[in-house]
Amino acid sequence: MRITSSLPDNGVLFTVDDVPGALWTPAGGTGPLVLVGHGGGQHRTAPGMAARVRRFTEAGFAVAVVDAPNHGDRPKDPELSRLAESIPARVAAGESRSALVAELHGLASRRSVPEWRAVLDALHAHLGPVPVGYWGVSMGCGLGVPFVAAEPRVRAAVLGLAPLHSGGGAAAGVTVPVRFLVQWHDELVPREESLALFDALGSTDKTLHANVGGHGEVPVAEVTSGLRFLDRHLRA
Amino acid sequence: MRITSSLPDNGVLFTVDDVPGALWTPAGGTGPLVLVGHGGGQHRTAPGMAARVRRFTEAGFAVAVVDAPNHGDRPKDPELSRLAESIPARVAAGESRSALVAELHGLASRRSVPEWRAVLDALHAHLGPVPVGYWGVSMGCGLGVPFVAAEPRVRAAVLGLAPLHSGGGAAAGVTVPVRFLVQWHDELVPREESLALFDALGSTDKTLHANVGGHGEVPVAEVTSGLRFLDRHLRA
Repeated sequence: MRITSSLPDNGVLFTVDDVPGALWTPAGGTGPLVLVGHGGGQHRTAPGMAARVRRFTEAGFAVAVVDAPNHGDRPKDPELSRLAESIPARVAAGESRSALVAELHGLASRRSVPEWRAVLDALHAHLGPVPVGYWGVSMGCGLGVPFVAAEPRVRAAVLGLAPLHSGGGAAAGVTVPVRFLVQWHDELVPREESLALFDALGSTDKTLHANVGGHGEVPVAEVTSGLRFLDRHLRA
Repeated sequence: MRITSSLPDNGVLFTVDDVPGALWTPAGGTGPLVLVGHGGGQHRTAPGMAARVRRFTEAGFAVAVVDAPNHGDRPKDPELSRLAESIPARVAAGESRSALVAELHGLASRRSVPEWRAVLDALHAHLGPVPVGYWGVSMGCGLGVPFVAAEPRVRAAVLGLAPLHSGGGAAAGVTVPVRFLVQWHDELVPREESLALFDALGSTDKTLHANVGGHGEVPVAEVTSGLRFLDRHLRA
């Protein structure tokens, strides 16, 4: 893990191999670690990211955000770019947008899963073996489902805003406690596909929270509540 | 309002006209009032009711439970009894259990709605004009939906574990903030009918919480969380 520069609010930018990430630690030094999988089009230092992760550090968590493949400071990946750019025309031609997005996330997760596991090795070496949770909705859920299924160090996860096939069939492999967010009027994810992903998760301890509004309108109260959920499971 | 006897934990039994109820007040004297609509087969002094309502009084609420028509200390109602008793055979003959139960709740609510409104008048005369919330799942939701729709003094409600037609078409008339509970493996209420009732509620501020398990397995954490929800809306 190579620390490349510092950020406000106890933050640093880092790379692990060629993967860029950012880490913020709470005022108390360290605490349980939450890995955040950002949404599509976002990245580790996107506008507003620092403000968003500040809720986590103020709740006593260390929080790390890693640029997903083809996002942020990463080089463009021709295969992912080609698939992403083909989506509007294929949707116009009648293909299912959520199936195409799930295909894109499936392809991206073949890289992101081993990358995030390596980042977690490095963060554990840096912070000590702190308990680990995962937070990712939308693309962060599409890439998060196969990651949480593959990574036994993740003890609890906040997921959601993604359709059944997001996660490439790994949902049944997620067995840790999950808080799953649904936006009842999500214009990007059909409601029944979102409910089907929740249903497919292998966890016996899972709770779905659905709120009115569109994809980008998750109420702030769900962030507070999700942090309480992670706190309960990571400090137990 | 006639107080007929006292109960442990600052409780009293009362009647309003011929309707029997129970009221518990918090240690501090009074607080916002939660009307609880009990489930089918339950009543104001059913085993465990005092322990359940203690969570409410410990959170600072006054809490009242009224025996629903044909329940508890109320005389048997021939029409409701006949309908209730016909359900097993009609389900065996292929009718939808949830539609029949919704029909039963619709019939009972023609009485319970005006009764509960009169009880609320009496409780407000007794306690002062404290803010009012409603808590009712299963039959308490079936009778609660038309009550909350009809009663403008109710400012927020916890509902759930009931199918679309429970509430007799009054769902769109519910416009206050709602927390709606779903049990993902509810053996009595088909999942899609439960989701359809949430969808039909007229409230713009409504949140669905779904947990794994059967009709009777709502996690205790949802009670705590529901009380926080009511607290937020009734003390605002």
